[in-house]
Amino acid sequence: MRLSKAFQPTLKEVPAEAQIASHRLMLRAGLVRQTSSGIYAWLPAGLRVLRNIEKIIREEQDAIGAQEVLMPTLQSADLWRRSGRYDAYGPEMLRIQDRHGRELLYGPTNEEMITDIFGSSVSSYKQLPKALYHIQWKFRDEVRPRFGVMRGREFLMKDAYSFDADYQGAVNSYRRMMLSYLRIFQRLGVRAVPMVADTGPIGGDLSHEFLVLAPTGESGVFFDAALEEQDWLGRPVDCDNEEDLAAFFSSVTDHYAATDEKHDEAAWAEVPDDRKREGRGIEVGHIFYFGTKYTESMGIEVSGADGAKFSPHMGSYGVGVSRLVGAIIEASHDEAGIIWPASVAPYKAAILNLRPGDEACDAICEEIYGTDSENFMYDDRSERAGVKFNDADLMGHPWQIIVGPRGAKEGKVELKRRADGERFELPVAEALAKIGAA
Amino acid sequence: MRLSKAFQPTLKEVPAEAQIASHRLMLRAGLVRQTSSGIYAWLPAGLRVLRNIEKIIREEQDAIGAQEVLMPTLQSADLWRRSGRYDAYGPEMLRIQDRHGRELLYGPTNEEMITDIFGSSVSSYKQLPKALYHIQWKFRDEVRPRFGVMRGREFLMKDAYSFDADYQGAVNSYRRMMLSYLRIFQRLGVRAVPMVADTGPIGGDLSHEFLVLAPTGESGVFFDAALEEQDWLGRPVDCDNEEDLAAFFSSVTDHYAATDEKHDEAAWAEVPDDRKREGRGIEVGHIFYFGTKYTESMGIEVSGADGAKFSPHMGSYGVGVSRLVGAIIEASHDEAGIIWPASVAPYKAAILNLRPGDEACDAICEEIYGTDSENFMYDDRSERAGVKFNDADLMGHPWQIIVGPRGAKEGKVELKRRADGERFELPVAEALAKIGAA
Repeated sequence: MRLSKAFQPTLKEVPAEAQIASHRLMLRAGLVRQTSSGIYAWLPAGLRVLRNIEKIIREEQDAIGAQEVLMPTLQSADLWRRSGRYDAYGPEMLRIQDRHGRELLYGPTNEEMITDIFGSSVSSYKQLPKALYHIQWKFRDEVRPRFGVMRGREFLMKDAYSFDADYQGAVNSYRRMMLSYLRIFQRLGVRAVPMVADTGPIGGDLSHEFLVLAPTGESGVFFDAALEEQDWLGRPVDCDNEEDLAAFFSSVTDHYAATDEKHDEAAWAEVPDDRKREGRGIEVGHIFYFGTKYTESMGIEVSGADGAKFSPHMGSYGVGVSRLVGAIIEASHDEAGIIWPASVAPYKAAILNLRPGDEACDAICEEIYGTDSENFMYDDRSERAGVKFNDADLMGHPWQIIVGPRGAKEGKVELKRRADGERFELPVAEALAKIGAA
Repeated sequence: MRLSKAFQPTLKEVPAEAQIASHRLMLRAGLVRQTSSGIYAWLPAGLRVLRNIEKIIREEQDAIGAQEVLMPTLQSADLWRRSGRYDAYGPEMLRIQDRHGRELLYGPTNEEMITDIFGSSVSSYKQLPKALYHIQWKFRDEVRPRFGVMRGREFLMKDAYSFDADYQGAVNSYRRMMLSYLRIFQRLGVRAVPMVADTGPIGGDLSHEFLVLAPTGESGVFFDAALEEQDWLGRPVDCDNEEDLAAFFSSVTDHYAATDEKHDEAAWAEVPDDRKREGRGIEVGHIFYFGTKYTESMGIEVSGADGAKFSPHMGSYGVGVSRLVGAIIEASHDEAGIIWPASVAPYKAAILNLRPGDEACDAICEEIYGTDSENFMYDDRSERAGVKFNDADLMGHPWQIIVGPRGAKEGKVELKRRADGERFELPVAEALAKIGAA
């Protein structure tokens, strides 16, 4: 994309209510625009980040055998009455009446709907296990929306639901999701640590929150360094093998990790000092086993091997997709702007033409841009070099390819790595190879 | 995907209210499930079709320089008061109050919002032209939803908006969109003919509907055969060249095409008899120039070359994405089921293992499946051959790869083309080549 034509309206000044870095930077860099309180429009560069995150989630959910569906945003109140949650849910639920006076709601989550769809589609234990997910806009009518997309009202979420014949099956499903989530966050380029969370009346230990480490996080976190050192992508786990899943799961849960709410000083004391990590975190995911709560309350049964009917065990698994854009920025930025991990960056590099109109500069820029115009942001504007440097830093492209008249004459460009500021003067082909290999 | 594991719940019986073929077939083939009146959940195979359509639209919109954004589903009533449409819009608008009593609505379209975003982002004629589009769920509270996804309440739509400095610029934008739409529909494998539509108080000739030809269409259509014979994908048009755009546009609008509402017997009489085509059509797109209607009413201005402020000219351009799934089926099915055009088919072929457990059959099926498991639907169920044939016909995969014990021993499979039923007995490699090349 040529920046001269791109719809990426950067802002010099941001509204005073933008208190945190990600909110300010997303507005300044032209990624989103607020359209109502807690409701945002995604501009092209922001949407590209959102799509990159979705793609990684989709690939890793598919990899463990989850299947993608797409449920609507609006649900009938009657569906929620069947589970008993319609009246129990507080004012965060957006309740709506249609033209015939029928009660609808904007879905804040989809347990009821997926259970209903499952129940009308699956009749035998032979069809289990099943895991279904969707990536859809949700609405929670926060009393005081703030922090930009981190606590908005209309937000994009990936929610998955598993259905198993028995508790052990549900445990396996849960463990597969744990693995999928660890891989997702690793690919997103953030450190997200799973921490034991409340299970409520269900009990047991099958509830984990995933927190992205960031100094501005809402929760204090305490965890064993082992949890941030592992390479989940490189670790082979046979998801159809119960023992393999169990071994993997132990390698996570054997290590201490807790938010300040659940912090246990006695257990913490047993962690070797050199492995203690403290910090703050932002919740970006939650996985949860809840047994037959919805299948029973909604009367959903399937036939077992012996012909007897039973209510399948369920779990639900959420990732805050739009929230992650903010969380990633909280975890990865500096004074000058965003520092995108390569996997989610809207463009892999900016090409900064320091002298548009100079024959050598234009030729080199066009040559580079032509190799992959879809994934470069070419700053071809007639602006001062300083403006271009600042905008590139603000937008956070992993690399800047700086093309000035002196180097251009020799066929050279300056490559700047956004993350650490390191610079390399290289011939064009070598610069492209370095970006491609990174 | 292995059909034994796939979440594709086919139905033997469909509800009586499913009156038209696409509605019945989408339910029977397990593509969608109704969750409330006029509101549908998309099951995996249906979602794949929807995504294939989106991808083609996105590529062809990007190709003419339109940029993708994503606006939220909920909008503030105040935004619509600025254009004067809030009170004018009828009961099809779903009006909502949030917990603070603020008035929201579920967007039926986005002229107001995009104009507002544009106005707060663009300040100079130098930034024009701009074309922005998004693909997002909309809601229209139809009094009597019916025909499945063809006239649902929550529906997926691609809507684009163009902003130009003057009328001639807007004409160019309009012509680019006309080209983009013709290419989109051609790639989708349907015949969609542009027909002059009402312009209302704006006047002029810049309003066209695109109708997919299908015997069950809601409108009668009359058009010159020239319009369905052209290869828009093979025709080079320089979208930056006004003369090129004008020549292309004439090649469309010089030929007669009208729905029964706008039919003109005198003009029709001038079309040579051998070029007259009559039929029925389903509206799947609409492009429309409306001048400064929204920029003026909402007070949006940019600076011109002379420093004077002016209100940009706009057009809007819609494609009914979810409706298209139904329209494609209406245009392409038979008694046995759906006949998917290859470009939108959820899977490129079904592999029918006629004897699971037979060593040769299993080996050949696994070999074929392994070459591209993402894009084959492998019917590995222990069902009778007749059930598999019927389900494959119903689901409408472009090809069926039929693997029976006799052929398997010789390394051969039977290939059936769904569209015309033609069969080919071929060695595996040749069968795969034939499918790939088709």
